[in-house]
Amino acid sequence: MEGKPLITLTSDFGLADSYAAQIKGVILNINPLSTIVDITHEINKFNIQTGAFMLASAVSYFPKGTIHVAIVDPGVGTKRRALLIITKQGYFIGPDNGLLILAAEHQEITNVYEILNTKYMLPHISETFHGRDVFAPVAAYLEKGVKPEEFGSIIDDPVKPDFIQIKHKKNNIHCNVLHIDSFGNIITNLEKNHVPTGTLNITLQDICFELELKKTYGETKPKDPTAIIGSHGFLEIAVNQGNAADIYHIKIGNKITIKT
Amino acid sequence: MEGKPLITLTSDFGLADSYAAQIKGVILNINPLSTIVDITHEINKFNIQTGAFMLASAVSYFPKGTIHVAIVDPGVGTKRRALLIITKQGYFIGPDNGLLILAAEHQEITNVYEILNTKYMLPHISETFHGRDVFAPVAAYLEKGVKPEEFGSIIDDPVKPDFIQIKHKKNNIHCNVLHIDSFGNIITNLEKNHVPTGTLNITLQDICFELELKKTYGETKPKDPTAIIGSHGFLEIAVNQGNAADIYHIKIGNKITIKT
Amino acid sequence: MEGKPLITLTSDFGLADSYAAQIKGVILNINPLSTIVDITHEINKFNIQTGAFMLASAVSYFPKGTIHVAIVDPGVGTKRRALLIITKQGYFIGPDNGLLILAAEHQEITNVYEILNTKYMLPHISETFHGRDVFAPVAAYLEKGVKPEEFGSIIDDPVKPDFIQIKHKKNNIHCNVLHIDSFGNIITNLEKNHVPTGTLNITLQDICFELELKKTYGETKPKDPTAIIGSHGFLEIAVNQGNAADIYHIKIGNKITIKT
Repeated sequence: MEGKPLITLTSDFGLADSYAAQIKGVILNINPLSTIVDITHEINKFNIQTGAFMLASAVSYFPKGTIHVAIVDPGVGTKRRALLIITKQGYFIGPDNGLLILAAEHQEITNVYEILNTKYMLPHISETFHGRDVFAPVAAYLEKGVKPEEFGSIIDDPVKPDFIQIKHKKNNIHCNVLHIDSFGNIITNLEKNHVPTGTLNITLQDICFELELKKTYGETKPKDPTAIIGSHGFLEIAVNQGNAADIYHIKIGNKITIKT
Repeated sequence: MEGKPLITLTSDFGLADSYAAQIKGVILNINPLSTIVDITHEINKFNIQTGAFMLASAVSYFPKGTIHVAIVDPGVGTKRRALLIITKQGYFIGPDNGLLILAAEHQEITNVYEILNTKYMLPHISETFHGRDVFAPVAAYLEKGVKPEEFGSIIDDPVKPDFIQIKHKKNNIHCNVLHIDSFGNIITNLEKNHVPTGTLNITLQDICFELELKKTYGETKPKDPTAIIGSHGFLEIAVNQGNAADIYHIKIGNKITIKT
Repeated sequence: MEGKPLITLTSDFGLADSYAAQIKGVILNINPLSTIVDITHEINKFNIQTGAFMLASAVSYFPKGTIHVAIVDPGVGTKRRALLIITKQGYFIGPDNGLLILAAEHQEITNVYEILNTKYMLPHISETFHGRDVFAPVAAYLEKGVKPEEFGSIIDDPVKPDFIQIKHKKNNIHCNVLHIDSFGNIITNLEKNHVPTGTLNITLQDICFELELKKTYGETKPKDPTAIIGSHGFLEIAVNQGNAADIYHIKIGNKITIKT
């Protein structure tokens, strides 16, 4: 593992309860030298999609070898699998519900393991809090040097929910609205490497846009729509000095078609 | 002190002001190598009981030797004492108002000191912020190796408020409702080691429950009451897929009687 | 740089988004050994004055050599300059809009640099997030030992907004209301070293106060006004057991005249 290892945490626990702290205690109990950074604990409860977006927006700024633990886990206690994903830049640990896969795919996935080995979990595993009892100890042991293959078996079918899907059909890319930020900017799930060159022909809820890809909002006239790659790395449709989602009545999950 | 020392912080300061940061500055000024973990700073203002519960819910996950600083301190500036409690697992520093004692008793208390030695406090002690001026420097010096007896004198009468009291009378245990969580689960102040074996006969506000102690909520039919030991380590009365506190009109502080 | 270097962060990003985490990632990518402490990320959006106050209230508790990064930056993307301020106690990095200068003047400024050298910024500098792309990497490189003069050129005209201004005219000091805290205490921008000795003759919105400087609120009768130096180091007008700002109809920015 390169440099000093680092663990990030992303969850929907909030900060009023002690859940995030319990996870940090577990990690530091196993590996007292861990550096732990919160990405956010204020994902809306059970909102996997927003969690996936927040994780994807942040991970590229962290050092190579960083271990990202994310917990938005409405299926905890059911048969949903626990994952350890290895990428070319780092590691992702969390539930197999789509939360990790968007950020992990940004970094090129090399292997996906289902976490199975109870040796690297807490002795008592609650039905409701795998963040503390499974994911936190796995992260700490991984950071201490335990090999990925020690934690479980390779799988090839991690869950890929709709909000991650990008389909190339004939001359079209079909993607969707991943997130709407507090300014009303419409963030798609199309990563910058997949954005076609030249004028973009975008259909979004019956509205057709013909847009040049700009570097900044300010290159467009006020109140005009614009397309940019946001600092999160995804194609974004915005209105200079306006709330694009309100103006065009767009919601998270809406379908987008882009001509190639 | 075992391993790398660690300090946790619990308070009602919130995160919008700089109070928690001032405490961290003071600690790092004395001991630049401190690792500091927030348990929470979002205890409701002056709510000692919730503070005590949050602290008790988290401390068992931290390494042996951890120093827990907690500040919910409506009596700051009055004659209330400042405490350093030594347990078999770690250290607790804060006001003598019941905030620390619930968590400390979980870990078996070995000694309780009243903090008196101004040598280990900031030069100017404000009347309103002993967290920064007294508790933070004491924690940092303790972490640096100053012996507990250097900070003050042993006492044997720390404050034990009602919400900590458990009374064994004849064939009954008298305890009370310590906390109601965001799901409406009724958390008692009865620690798992004190819960009688066999069917539990519980009286809570004129309502009599006969309950088997279950491992998980799911072992009971939906909408039926159940008794479990929560991940916080206390007896809890819950309703599977329901809000127990609402259904039974239960509030924090309500009295509970359990037959032994 | 003395001891183990330390970076603090102050911003208006909130904790629900990943912005503060992105900054931490950038810092730890450049300098994996950084210790990073949040002062607060909950400054009201674009409120430079509250940001300046929060920063000034906290910095004196941090070790000598601490690097303070603050970002409340409504002018990001315009021609506003980026600053590195060197004081006798530490370093301040952020936008040239008055955010840093109040705290920096507390510590005696030795030099102010305009940050210009793109070598110490991220390769791609967004128009909207200099916290991550400029201030974070500058802080990390400064912590690693890059000399201040490497980052840019000395300037002598950093922005000093109204809320920092203190004017000595004839026998009067003209200052203003810097902040009103959650208790309604009226915090002025007059630092303790500038407060005249003896009875204070204070005019605040047509109201004249004759007040002795007290050490604590409790030295005054309940409901009476009092003047103290708060733990933040500024002159404060308060009402013992009352809300001074409400009682006297005082708002942030109101002018104050004090006879010397």
